[in-house]
Amino acid sequence: MPVLRIPGVRLAAGAAGIRYQGRDDLVLLALPDGAQTAAVFTTNAFCAAPVQLARRHLAQTQPRWLLINAGNANAGTGDRGLADAETCCTALAAAADCAPEQVLPFSTGVIGEYLPVGAIAAALPQLVAGLREDGWTDAAGAIMTTDTHPKTASASCDLGGREAKVVGIAKGAGMIRPDMATMLAFLCTDAPVPRDLLQALLREAVADTFNAITIDGDTSTNDACVLSAAGTLGGPPVTAGSPELQALALAVHQVCAALATSIVRDGEGATKLVTIEVVEAQSAAEARAVADTIAHSPLVKTALFAADPNWGRILAAVGRAGVARLDIERVRIWLDDCLIVSGGGRDPTYTEVAGRAVMARDAFRIRVGLGRGEITTRVLTCDLSYDYVRINAEYRT
Amino acid sequence: MPVLRIPGVRLAAGAAGIRYQGRDDLVLLALPDGAQTAAVFTTNAFCAAPVQLARRHLAQTQPRWLLINAGNANAGTGDRGLADAETCCTALAAAADCAPEQVLPFSTGVIGEYLPVGAIAAALPQLVAGLREDGWTDAAGAIMTTDTHPKTASASCDLGGREAKVVGIAKGAGMIRPDMATMLAFLCTDAPVPRDLLQALLREAVADTFNAITIDGDTSTNDACVLSAAGTLGGPPVTAGSPELQALALAVHQVCAALATSIVRDGEGATKLVTIEVVEAQSAAEARAVADTIAHSPLVKTALFAADPNWGRILAAVGRAGVARLDIERVRIWLDDCLIVSGGGRDPTYTEVAGRAVMARDAFRIRVGLGRGEITTRVLTCDLSYDYVRINAEYRT
Repeated sequence: MPVLRIPGVRLAAGAAGIRYQGRDDLVLLALPDGAQTAAVFTTNAFCAAPVQLARRHLAQTQPRWLLINAGNANAGTGDRGLADAETCCTALAAAADCAPEQVLPFSTGVIGEYLPVGAIAAALPQLVAGLREDGWTDAAGAIMTTDTHPKTASASCDLGGREAKVVGIAKGAGMIRPDMATMLAFLCTDAPVPRDLLQALLREAVADTFNAITIDGDTSTNDACVLSAAGTLGGPPVTAGSPELQALALAVHQVCAALATSIVRDGEGATKLVTIEVVEAQSAAEARAVADTIAHSPLVKTALFAADPNWGRILAAVGRAGVARLDIERVRIWLDDCLIVSGGGRDPTYTEVAGRAVMARDAFRIRVGLGRGEITTRVLTCDLSYDYVRINAEYRT
Repeated sequence: MPVLRIPGVRLAAGAAGIRYQGRDDLVLLALPDGAQTAAVFTTNAFCAAPVQLARRHLAQTQPRWLLINAGNANAGTGDRGLADAETCCTALAAAADCAPEQVLPFSTGVIGEYLPVGAIAAALPQLVAGLREDGWTDAAGAIMTTDTHPKTASASCDLGGREAKVVGIAKGAGMIRPDMATMLAFLCTDAPVPRDLLQALLREAVADTFNAITIDGDTSTNDACVLSAAGTLGGPPVTAGSPELQALALAVHQVCAALATSIVRDGEGATKLVTIEVVEAQSAAEARAVADTIAHSPLVKTALFAADPNWGRILAAVGRAGVARLDIERVRIWLDDCLIVSGGGRDPTYTEVAGRAVMARDAFRIRVGLGRGEITTRVLTCDLSYDYVRINAEYRT
């Protein structure tokens, strides 16, 4: 499906040679006058310099520019890292004739190395000159690190007779366990939306999409998800509680869900897309604890890689998830619709053949019934393969 | 160093063909009359049938026999699993002329398969006939699953002019994140110790040994650590607060620490022994949270495998450990004595050459100073290698 465009939102990608050779690694996204922008960021205490600066700029004014680089996270770089991020914003302000605080900087890549500020600044004038509304796919390619392919998604919805569009790009593919925010994802819509509504809409959309995926449990220092409303669709601003807001929220959610799924599918070394669904929990916290414990268990993840229905490892993960007074007699576990565990052990109807048939699929669901409440949660994850070790033992070298 | 013997404590190992061919997989340990026994068990809610039964028997009487099998965990086996464990105890009671509740059963291996009770019962008479005081090393070999070598340790101490001995065996090597108890470990001493003192002594010894190691974060369903005091040394029982208790506690701690270290060294696929030391924490809980987050991070563990001083991954793990109001300016990170992080970024004195030199070692320490208190904790862990994935993708198949 071709990526839609957002009228008035222009992008450019270019090569600054930050880390990679022979590919783009720098992206500029220009928002039209009057655009409103919402964002959520990582909860990692060691948040990167660009995250700190983007937060500060967002509090000062509405951004006109997003400046994104791959190959270097500008994290763990102390005061100099913050100064480097500021220099990039100042350089773009000069090239694009705006105020530095109208620029939001984003970085992704290796932690702990200083940003090649000169190379980035030198590349900016050409990027400003090359801005295009159809630059989304090139931009998605330029922000990749260990991703194997660009991630784009778009959706549209009816807004009182007008067709509003939502377009997004994102990058993974390791250090992925978003918490309150996510890896890098940038979404725009042409709908006119006041900033406070936009922020609420974004928070709601990421909750069960980007915030419900995990590849390796490692919440990044640079996670950020941005949603800008260009307003170029025209018409009255979307209002709270309106059917228009509901329609737009659905479209934003669709784009977030598609990008989040792409990230897990392209997880480092991943060969399987696995949905962990926990039902009948007493609280969202215990549901999430059980789902996360399964999703992060190296023993479960290697069994997924082997397509081995080793349900004992799933059961052991449920048992150590810290659920108080768990009645193991009531716990059931399914692989898709195949019931494998009941009454504290293997279900009498279960056959290894049926379990193997599910695990052989590219994508399937592990469903755990706790038998103690009404709460459900879902987490998307992938397996742990030789390639995960290879990618992360070789990265940086 | 040869393993010491405990006078009056006899062991035998034999092959029951439970899972493995051509090796021993069944162990009998006989305690003399009057021996006192303490134990700690897994906190996993799905604790195995033998764990449930051993707890019940311990509450009823003092054990005279430990019956241990490898290759099958008898976990996730429901009511039939409990009945199977009872049958094993009854069979031994008949062969050894004791009450079934004087037998403590232990199992380790695959979860979710039924125990071959007939084969175990059939092997018991020969084991009873073959009991020997020098059977420790054979026993350590017979309880192995994915371990690559038997784990034994012994120590001695002066008890009011008499030399008391402590001997222990243990097995790893995956699903290791002991919590309140540990994988399988069996220790005996010839010292006379009342049961309540013995239990306190064991709890204290495991706290910073078996309970401070992690290979993959997966707390097992079968963890158990047993300490028996045969009393065959003679002399008055050890009393609370005495120098004798202190000397014995030190010897028990030495044996636990040696076995715990052996388990991590022999962790599945492990090539490095890494001590995570967190200092200057405000509480033991936050110190342990930081240490565990580093020890369980797949990104840190793969960097350890690659001997890559990728300190950004350590810093990111510290940042996501959930420490409230962490002042990143005060955080420092060392590799052994090499300071790599200060002031939120790379320390000015740090060189990549120095970092690589430490990471090339077989064993080293990652030390994190939080700069906010006086509490220290230590966790032992290992790296995440191709072989971890291979072992756990192939196990069971």
